[in-house]
Amino acid sequence: MSEYIIALDAMGGDNAPDAIVRGGVEALRHFPDVRILLAGPEARIRALLDEAGDVRDRAEILPADDVITMDEAPMLAVRKKTNSSMVQAMLAVREKRAGAAVSAGSTGAVLACGMLRIGRIQGIERPALAVVIPGVKKPFLLLDAGANVDCQPRYLVQFGLMGSVYMAGVMGVEHPAVGLVNIGAEPEKGNKLSKETYQLMQAQTSYRFAGNVEARDIAMGDHDVLVADGFDGNIILKYTEGMASAMMTMLKTNLMASKVTKLGAALSRPAFRKFKRTLDYNAYGGAPLLGVDGAVIKAHGSSGETAIMNAVRQAREMLVGDVAGKIREGLAGLETDDPTSIPEK
Amino acid sequence: MSEYIIALDAMGGDNAPDAIVRGGVEALRHFPDVRILLAGPEARIRALLDEAGDVRDRAEILPADDVITMDEAPMLAVRKKTNSSMVQAMLAVREKRAGAAVSAGSTGAVLACGMLRIGRIQGIERPALAVVIPGVKKPFLLLDAGANVDCQPRYLVQFGLMGSVYMAGVMGVEHPAVGLVNIGAEPEKGNKLSKETYQLMQAQTSYRFAGNVEARDIAMGDHDVLVADGFDGNIILKYTEGMASAMMTMLKTNLMASKVTKLGAALSRPAFRKFKRTLDYNAYGGAPLLGVDGAVIKAHGSSGETAIMNAVRQAREMLVGDVAGKIREGLAGLETDDPTSIPEK
Repeated sequence: MSEYIIALDAMGGDNAPDAIVRGGVEALRHFPDVRILLAGPEARIRALLDEAGDVRDRAEILPADDVITMDEAPMLAVRKKTNSSMVQAMLAVREKRAGAAVSAGSTGAVLACGMLRIGRIQGIERPALAVVIPGVKKPFLLLDAGANVDCQPRYLVQFGLMGSVYMAGVMGVEHPAVGLVNIGAEPEKGNKLSKETYQLMQAQTSYRFAGNVEARDIAMGDHDVLVADGFDGNIILKYTEGMASAMMTMLKTNLMASKVTKLGAALSRPAFRKFKRTLDYNAYGGAPLLGVDGAVIKAHGSSGETAIMNAVRQAREMLVGDVAGKIREGLAGLETDDPTSIPEK
Repeated sequence: MSEYIIALDAMGGDNAPDAIVRGGVEALRHFPDVRILLAGPEARIRALLDEAGDVRDRAEILPADDVITMDEAPMLAVRKKTNSSMVQAMLAVREKRAGAAVSAGSTGAVLACGMLRIGRIQGIERPALAVVIPGVKKPFLLLDAGANVDCQPRYLVQFGLMGSVYMAGVMGVEHPAVGLVNIGAEPEKGNKLSKETYQLMQAQTSYRFAGNVEARDIAMGDHDVLVADGFDGNIILKYTEGMASAMMTMLKTNLMASKVTKLGAALSRPAFRKFKRTLDYNAYGGAPLLGVDGAVIKAHGSSGETAIMNAVRQAREMLVGDVAGKIREGLAGLETDDPTSIPEK
């Protein structure tokens, strides 16, 4: 039986280290083929592992006394704090002592750490952060969700590949439909970046390019993967959150306006609760950092025990599906000679 | 008493010419200081004007036998069809026979027509399409909603001015707060365009720059004006529509799941209807094309009589508030020397 070794940043997130360690232990109970490496202060982690009981032998400690905090400048912190729990977890992946790393620490630091401490898959120009978002018909993967704010067309073409491989390997989607976020459906629509990207995506043979997707249709979930640069992707992600809570607020105001609608609202409460859960994209686990040479999951900062367990499950699925390997293979089929590419500045 | 002359593209939109003419006549009844010029086929317009009765003397016909259709290539159509109702309405503004033009025709054609047939205010580099969107606290103006997909920082700085002048002059907002759509609140956050724009907006003295606005907060309505390039602005606008209807669909599915919640939904119906109206940004009238040397309102293609009446009201308010004049004045206070500007390609 093959074994999947996953390194956990035990000190990342609001509920570290307790929830991280417990979540990891929970994962060990669910998956007999998983081993975890817990990066953090030895004594504290060891104490928490006393609860592990029967699965204790599949949990190892990576001593790391330093912590990268939320308010630190990511690049600097990652460079400086070589003995931090996050850096140690990522180094375990680089040195192949682990196949995957999970952290609930600062997004910026996870991105920087993945880039600097693990490094990119050869041929990948920019790793991207991907997030699964609920759609009307089905959930879809949005990338880049914020790792690269200024992009070249060929980066986006690679995002399409990485997203396609992830949805196929981890979410079990056959021939994922990859859409390009744009302001019109026709190939000639869009800005310089999206027009050039369209041409390159259509030329490649590694994944199924399904054309432009207008923002009006994003929430429908007609596509499995939506590609945008990190600036637009982040705007779409954050606006999804913002709109959802704004609309709930507006709707509540209207519901509270009369006795009858108040009663209606009371009766409808179960549906509203279910609806809110439907919209919560954290339910789909953490955000994979795709394109680094290994599997990295950025878990939500507020992750509790169960969220961490799910993040470990996700990391395991990325290893089972050999996402990094399949991305490497797919690179061959990308047409990334891009004469019209926007020159770097 | 000063008089406001507004040219109407009588053949633009799904309900032309009937709804356009009737909407114009309705406007004449509301505003004794308005005169309208109806551009379209003389006989048809004259027949419709028979209903005008008492206000007939304030309605004039601009004979135009051609029509620019929805499926035509905008630039080409505007150049070719010099005798179309849209071009004739815009020419009336250029030649100062009218102060404003209203059209429910194709957005692309209205933009092209405004640029080619009316022209920009001297000093304005790119006119922008602006749309009022409902927010939790108050409605806000989003621009550019899609006229300019590739922007320079100094264009966005001018968008801020135009939006500020419109909200002050037409919506009666004192010292409108102008926000820059970005992926973080801090000045150093964002992509090349937003970072440079931030610096220039802060340097200018013509309007109140209120800093970056994260997408998560867009829907709150904390700001009066939100500036983005035409690509992101269009994505935000269209995604707002899409999310709203997607969320209603998801919510409905949840409400129909049980007898109790079904009853709750039935009782809540009035609130849902009111909620849907709250979200309909067409309720705020048409979209002003700001930066052209005159007032231009792009009315929704599906505009009926009332929508057209409101668009005429809006055009009148732009003239009363002297939006074009105030934009001209404001240009003086803009710091648009932009050494770091992205070179045009």
